[in-house]
Amino acid sequence: MDQEFEWIESIKQKRKTGESVIVGVGDDAAIVSGVAGFYDVIAVDTMVEDIHFSSVTMTPEDIGYKALAVNISDLAAMGAIPRHYIVSIAIPKKGWPQEKTRRIYEGLEEAAEKDGMDLIGGDTVSTSDKLVITVTVTGIVETSVRLTRDQAEPGDVIVVTGPLGSSPAGLDLLLGQDDMTAIPETEQEALVKAHQRPVPQVKAGRLFAEMGIRAALNDISDGIAREAKEIAEASSVRMVLDWNRIPKPDVLTGFPMSKQQDWVLYGGEEFQLVAAFSREHWREVCLRAQTAGVSIFPVGMVEQGDAAVDLICEGKRETLTRSGYAHF
Amino acid sequence: MDQEFEWIESIKQKRKTGESVIVGVGDDAAIVSGVAGFYDVIAVDTMVEDIHFSSVTMTPEDIGYKALAVNISDLAAMGAIPRHYIVSIAIPKKGWPQEKTRRIYEGLEEAAEKDGMDLIGGDTVSTSDKLVITVTVTGIVETSVRLTRDQAEPGDVIVVTGPLGSSPAGLDLLLGQDDMTAIPETEQEALVKAHQRPVPQVKAGRLFAEMGIRAALNDISDGIAREAKEIAEASSVRMVLDWNRIPKPDVLTGFPMSKQQDWVLYGGEEFQLVAAFSREHWREVCLRAQTAGVSIFPVGMVEQGDAAVDLICEGKRETLTRSGYAHF
Repeated sequence: MDQEFEWIESIKQKRKTGESVIVGVGDDAAIVSGVAGFYDVIAVDTMVEDIHFSSVTMTPEDIGYKALAVNISDLAAMGAIPRHYIVSIAIPKKGWPQEKTRRIYEGLEEAAEKDGMDLIGGDTVSTSDKLVITVTVTGIVETSVRLTRDQAEPGDVIVVTGPLGSSPAGLDLLLGQDDMTAIPETEQEALVKAHQRPVPQVKAGRLFAEMGIRAALNDISDGIAREAKEIAEASSVRMVLDWNRIPKPDVLTGFPMSKQQDWVLYGGEEFQLVAAFSREHWREVCLRAQTAGVSIFPVGMVEQGDAAVDLICEGKRETLTRSGYAHF
Repeated sequence: MDQEFEWIESIKQKRKTGESVIVGVGDDAAIVSGVAGFYDVIAVDTMVEDIHFSSVTMTPEDIGYKALAVNISDLAAMGAIPRHYIVSIAIPKKGWPQEKTRRIYEGLEEAAEKDGMDLIGGDTVSTSDKLVITVTVTGIVETSVRLTRDQAEPGDVIVVTGPLGSSPAGLDLLLGQDDMTAIPETEQEALVKAHQRPVPQVKAGRLFAEMGIRAALNDISDGIAREAKEIAEASSVRMVLDWNRIPKPDVLTGFPMSKQQDWVLYGGEEFQLVAAFSREHWREVCLRAQTAGVSIFPVGMVEQGDAAVDLICEGKRETLTRSGYAHF
């Protein structure tokens, strides 16, 4: 526990905190100010060693970076502005040098800096086995904004904010699970980076929030098949995706269709956003996206019908029955 | 992961949520409203199986109850009003029936109900080994209140809100570590209950917050020796504790002094509060405490000097060198 104190001290000294932090790291709890006209947004994600990541495929910095990035992605999916984070980490008693923990915090800080987030607290405990890291993030969103999964309506256009399939293909590369030697080295690196250093789509989320339009928004953490299903169920609509329109890295198109679909539809940890919104806003969304440097790709339409996801692919339309990436 | 969905659904249906919850369990993140004139308070604590609890000494309900209670205690130590909580749980892949997880949630809910807290989100993942449960809590506190550890001043009176030593003695009882057969059965049960079902001192925290006085406040999660040391260090003062004045269960006084001190000074997970505040407020604190049904026991004084904790015991005054309960 005294180790924890050293930690807290080293973290405290390092951080310059923003004005919104009234009491930061080191007391019983953190105290932060709210913002008039905004609600607080809060999300928590846990990553377990050898379930969500492994030391074979991720450096300690990657682990830290990703543990925060996946949470920022949840904020992005609510259209929120990220603000603060808290790290709770259960460290293996054996074979986990303090240096490794320090490097995890370096990675966390790297992810935090991009969105100007402040570390406001944490808990460091030991465990007899695997590393477990739980990150809590807070943000704010305008009280008028509600980018929840139940906002899709028949007639809506479905978009994603970037190519899908890179992260799971990158993981397969790292694990040597497929013969991917045909992929040029720089492209291989891009796939691996997509897995190790996913970029949460905060700007895209803010675009929808600032426009103030009705939109269903989800981050693609468990494959678009599953995320679209969540929107379909919450909104009681049918989501129709067009395979040809889904953006994917060119280097994946040479692989068999079933493999491509594994990566693109069911791959985990993509962290692009999927949105459904009225076609009448299509033009304005595109214009604003261009100005903001956000990519928007139309990938399908919302229809009336039972809550389900249909895929149009190679001239056929089929209802997807598989779920997305499942840790359980 | 589909199990997680079932979970979320069962939790969603069960909960009636307060008005402050704008978006609760089941979306990417929770959205809650702030309160004008109040800051947000946030705390996180992680409990690891066989480090912080064991199935030998705690039922699943106890584990859930305590995981939330220790967090509420952190809010209490800031003088905050508890509001919301989020549960992140890493469940062992083997030998952990879903029924056990359900019982943990029952315990969480029990602790939440006492303070009217709403569950607003969570994450359920699997782990190859020990159960890890991380609870995030939020509360609010008046913007004028600052009950931090750095608020103690020479001349202050030091108080605690209840007897110390019960929880660690209860743990020893559960583990059969001492011959405690001389303790009557009902008293044994009380000690065990103090360990399994600690009561966070929210009312006591609110008393100091509502009075609006300067006070250093800590919850006694790791023994009063260590918590007093934290105040001493943050406030640059010397904390002087009087052994005879520290309230302790009568049944412990028959044990050797070193054993008593283990329990009373260094025992973990007490969750009473320790406070230091100006003697000029002594009378009013006592009056208000009586009205609120809060116990206040004076246990020492704050002096000028190097950051340290002195104990007056059996006619001697000595500086405590041991630290409190350490998980590491």
